[in-house]
Amino acid sequence: MSAAAHKSQVHTNMTQAPQPTLLELSDFLEKEFPQTRCRIMAVGDGGATLRHEVGVSELRPGGTVSGPVMMGLADVGLYVAIMGEVGLLPMIVTASLNFNFLRKPAGDRSLVAVCRLIKVGRTLAVGEATLYSEGLDDPVAHAVGTYALPPGR
Amino acid sequence: MSAAAHKSQVHTNMTQAPQPTLLELSDFLEKEFPQTRCRIMAVGDGGATLRHEVGVSELRPGGTVSGPVMMGLADVGLYVAIMGEVGLLPMIVTASLNFNFLRKPAGDRSLVAVCRLIKVGRTLAVGEATLYSEGLDDPVAHAVGTYALPPGR
Amino acid sequence: MSAAAHKSQVHTNMTQAPQPTLLELSDFLEKEFPQTRCRIMAVGDGGATLRHEVGVSELRPGGTVSGPVMMGLADVGLYVAIMGEVGLLPMIVTASLNFNFLRKPAGDRSLVAVCRLIKVGRTLAVGEATLYSEGLDDPVAHAVGTYALPPGR
Amino acid sequence: MSAAAHKSQVHTNMTQAPQPTLLELSDFLEKEFPQTRCRIMAVGDGGATLRHEVGVSELRPGGTVSGPVMMGLADVGLYVAIMGEVGLLPMIVTASLNFNFLRKPAGDRSLVAVCRLIKVGRTLAVGEATLYSEGLDDPVAHAVGTYALPPGR
Repeated sequence: MSAAAHKSQVHTNMTQAPQPTLLELSDFLEKEFPQTRCRIMAVGDGGATLRHEVGVSELRPGGTVSGPVMMGLADVGLYVAIMGEVGLLPMIVTASLNFNFLRKPAGDRSLVAVCRLIKVGRTLAVGEATLYSEGLDDPVAHAVGTYALPPGR
Repeated sequence: MSAAAHKSQVHTNMTQAPQPTLLELSDFLEKEFPQTRCRIMAVGDGGATLRHEVGVSELRPGGTVSGPVMMGLADVGLYVAIMGEVGLLPMIVTASLNFNFLRKPAGDRSLVAVCRLIKVGRTLAVGEATLYSEGLDDPVAHAVGTYALPPGR
Repeated sequence: MSAAAHKSQVHTNMTQAPQPTLLELSDFLEKEFPQTRCRIMAVGDGGATLRHEVGVSELRPGGTVSGPVMMGLADVGLYVAIMGEVGLLPMIVTASLNFNFLRKPAGDRSLVAVCRLIKVGRTLAVGEATLYSEGLDDPVAHAVGTYALPPGR
Repeated sequence: MSAAAHKSQVHTNMTQAPQPTLLELSDFLEKEFPQTRCRIMAVGDGGATLRHEVGVSELRPGGTVSGPVMMGLADVGLYVAIMGEVGLLPMIVTASLNFNFLRKPAGDRSLVAVCRLIKVGRTLAVGEATLYSEGLDDPVAHAVGTYALPPGR
């Protein structure tokens, strides 16, 4: 087997923009997405972990969390992970989001998204997000997102 | 070329449940998704068209619509199209949603989702949704969703 | 409902390169993919239809066609549909391919791919392909592909 | 952050079928896919690593590997990883395969697929595969596959 497989799977091109701190990213998120309930728990090393406190209006009958809430959390999480690598660029655009729903999330727990970048190229970034109900082992959803990066950065 | 390709691409197995009317589906939607802003415009023949009036809280900086709003509309639209074929089953579950964002939607127009079922099998349904800013020709997003149908229907 | 939804869903930007004929595309395919068994049946109007005669080595136990054969057909079909719009560009690169397998294809029939472009932008094209066993109504697979177009075209 | 995120992401239901050895899986592969060039390097713990020696007929102009070869490797790798958990079941069927092409693979190196299961449920398994050119650090492709498991296992 290749040695490659044992190494970290994050592979970032050189970038000039400074890598922002968790605090700077949180401020940016609050300004860009004022309605978001996502909070950044960790960022760096080609990944990010976010937490989303589930609101009553986000529940579905049966006490589970609605799909768009999970999709939004994965999207914001990958966006944060990318900015953690390339800087606070305002023009990062989601190109695709592929989502697999694995289990019903618990309605009475926060959602946690563990995001990991697979590629950060010159014009495109690709990452995956695994979502959990906080404190439970089994993932509730998995996403792969691709993002167009602004040219000339 | 096969004659098959020229025919409608909707292929539904026999089902016993009666196909609901647009009114019955709208009532169902209002009960199951009380917060939704989606309205059913047409349903039947293996498809559905829904309209979503964009709210101020759903806008992103730059006057465009947030991604989760579009994903939610596609998901609800496919769900409605499936129920239009198999009946008002409460246990239809989204298994996957693959989303391509094509263009920025206009912030001052409603979103329209044109949904078309590709397969309605015994345990799985697959459909696609094309989203537009109302009145504009170019699609803003395209989605493919797969749905698990309740056993024994 | 929007008038947009009733119109064709192909939306191509202006391009300077001449649109190739079916014969020119077939010659190109033979040179670029000498091993391919795909034949172009129709191309133009933002779409293409291809036929693939299934070889004995492409069968799986049980008399069905292997998955990569279907994926390859969808990929080549979308590639042809794009070149039908933008010209015989050698640097069109598949960025993603999302594949849903719907039914077992018949091992004793050719495969037919009906491809339709959803977007042809400046740097990205998106299309979908529906695959059939020739002469049968039910689709066996559905794919959505995204393609990076060469800059400065 | 949840402790869950730090744990292994493999979550397998109880299964009665014995977990096959690497040798048993290799024999099975040779019988089911006699034309495959994939070799199993490791299997177990909810994952598998496979190696595919690239043949001359699998190269594309420019000295790179064709897309369907990579898709086939990912598909077989996930199939092997699943059988490593649930046993040598003949009726595991690919339901979907979502593929992102990240970089041109080297034409003169073998491909290596590192596969990891995300969920192994009663009727559905989901996994991801990361592909490398052997000996190189940067992944060339990433796939997520979903597989229908035979009922009553």
